[in-house]
Amino acid sequence: MKAAFLHAPGDVRVEEAPDPVILAPTDAIVRVTAACVCGSDLWPYRGVSKIRRTLAMGHELVGLVEEVGAEVTTVKPGDFVISPFTFSDNSCPSCRRGFQSACDHIGFFGSRDSQGLATVGAQGELARIPLADGSLIVVRAPFDQALVPGLLSLSDVMSTGHHAAVSAEVGPGSVVVVVGDGAVGLSGVLAASRLGAERVIAMSRHQDRAELARAFGATDVVAERGADGIAAISALLGGELADAALECVGTEESMDQAIGSVRPGGRVGYVGVPAGGSRLPIQMLFPRNITVGGGTAPARHYIPELLPDVLSGAIDPGRVFDLELPLEDAAEGYAAMDERRAIKVLLRPAA
Amino acid sequence: MKAAFLHAPGDVRVEEAPDPVILAPTDAIVRVTAACVCGSDLWPYRGVSKIRRTLAMGHELVGLVEEVGAEVTTVKPGDFVISPFTFSDNSCPSCRRGFQSACDHIGFFGSRDSQGLATVGAQGELARIPLADGSLIVVRAPFDQALVPGLLSLSDVMSTGHHAAVSAEVGPGSVVVVVGDGAVGLSGVLAASRLGAERVIAMSRHQDRAELARAFGATDVVAERGADGIAAISALLGGELADAALECVGTEESMDQAIGSVRPGGRVGYVGVPAGGSRLPIQMLFPRNITVGGGTAPARHYIPELLPDVLSGAIDPGRVFDLELPLEDAAEGYAAMDERRAIKVLLRPAA
Repeated sequence: MKAAFLHAPGDVRVEEAPDPVILAPTDAIVRVTAACVCGSDLWPYRGVSKIRRTLAMGHELVGLVEEVGAEVTTVKPGDFVISPFTFSDNSCPSCRRGFQSACDHIGFFGSRDSQGLATVGAQGELARIPLADGSLIVVRAPFDQALVPGLLSLSDVMSTGHHAAVSAEVGPGSVVVVVGDGAVGLSGVLAASRLGAERVIAMSRHQDRAELARAFGATDVVAERGADGIAAISALLGGELADAALECVGTEESMDQAIGSVRPGGRVGYVGVPAGGSRLPIQMLFPRNITVGGGTAPARHYIPELLPDVLSGAIDPGRVFDLELPLEDAAEGYAAMDERRAIKVLLRPAA
Repeated sequence: MKAAFLHAPGDVRVEEAPDPVILAPTDAIVRVTAACVCGSDLWPYRGVSKIRRTLAMGHELVGLVEEVGAEVTTVKPGDFVISPFTFSDNSCPSCRRGFQSACDHIGFFGSRDSQGLATVGAQGELARIPLADGSLIVVRAPFDQALVPGLLSLSDVMSTGHHAAVSAEVGPGSVVVVVGDGAVGLSGVLAASRLGAERVIAMSRHQDRAELARAFGATDVVAERGADGIAAISALLGGELADAALECVGTEESMDQAIGSVRPGGRVGYVGVPAGGSRLPIQMLFPRNITVGGGTAPARHYIPELLPDVLSGAIDPGRVFDLELPLEDAAEGYAAMDERRAIKVLLRPAA
């Protein structure tokens, strides 16, 4: 099959690789309908996180089940499935509590599964999904193929934006600031709006992203950052600050921005992968009683709740994909996201 | 009047000081029935936090109102009152949300009030309480004088332990670990138990404190610390970890202990004043989805809820006071707490 690999910072190549095969009786092999490039893929692409070996890239996919292992009971060949970005057994204590992203048998694309068996990346023609019964969510046919981007977004960004909002306890009437105008931040805007937030302030200085934020339910857009950004938020809120902030970047600056944007007793939901040096400054949190929660999103937990809204058209999270390319052009997809020419890139293997 | 001052690390003296007087029409003057020494008083006493000037000590008191300013309407001379450890207007947005410890007009004992006027410490014969209507809670007479320690505990430690439990969302059925066996930690045990926790594991290696923890509702006591402590907790819980941990110390080690004691998706309520270098290690929190909340306790918010339980005898938080001394012997009180000969010291001015 063809699949995307990162050899060195900036060096993405689509190459021939062995077709993945069933290695455990709980596996499924999925033929990828669509995959995509994640903001977190840019950390190694930019050399921010160290690359010690060639990386099989991608951790978001939707596709058709081709083959299942002998013990798989809930998915079958021909099923259209969404794979969350982490594999989970969906039965351990953490999974039962809704934290499948901390499953006792967690596994990751392009790395190892819980049995130590190598997995492939999602940016390829085929993928082996360990713990298929626990990991995969079946989308019942028929559905409009135009929904593929929206379904794919549930694999990671929409579920992650939703996790930020849930972790910040966003609900009806909430006043929310969203830090980060990447695909996760924009999904956070949509999630906050869906959960009933009264006011959603998106922080963005890019016109295309600000427009999508408004389409997703942002009531206000603030272009300023740092202390100026906080002053602008306070001006919008009659001198007060927000009930909640969603931190969707993962840098020290973005975390400080989120913490500084909420009122005493407020909450920060954080989902930005802290590869960029994010920290939690307790001296800022303690006197103002700011709660911080979040982390790796349990997409497996949220997809059953979000899926009906995508299928019904109530939400259209697939709009974060503003560039679609054939898998072969993955390198251009990375470059477009790195240079902010695209919010999020959808990759389609040849049919 | 006589009052306690800290001149240098280890150097507490009870000295003559001017009687406080009404400085603003919203003030009250309170004759102190009982005050006490706080664990946080030990930071400057031990030289951990810098002493730049002689400090008027103490921030917890109960007493009788002697005089009120012209604008005070809810307390009157003769009323027995509890003063929270921070002054607040009880009407600003933060106060209305229950975060009086982040009041727009917050003031502190031994420092300045919101108008910039000097305040005295609580470890003295008299105290000026700014914003008396907002700050003070009246205890309706008659009540048993034996309840004075319990009422005094509401001023800080019991409210603070309760805040740790509330911040960690402890409720019926919770499995809770309490880090810290000082007066706040022990109060946290009592608060968790009062809120319906099913299992309360107190971390203590001092027999007297462990005994009081059990009397306060601890179901288990773990003497080990660090990784050994976490292993002991896991063994008690059949291989799992706690739903919630209360961090009641304020050091890096105690925060790591609390974070390491909870399961994925668990919560840490932290109230240990982070003077000792407490930090929030995001790389430990993110993959396990640990939420951290807490900070300076809004005692003013909690006292009306906790007071009836003290008056009825349903809880007896005053048991944290295991040494009572005349105010004159404040220096001995500090030494006893510093050397861990006492859990918490109650000081009584001469009647």
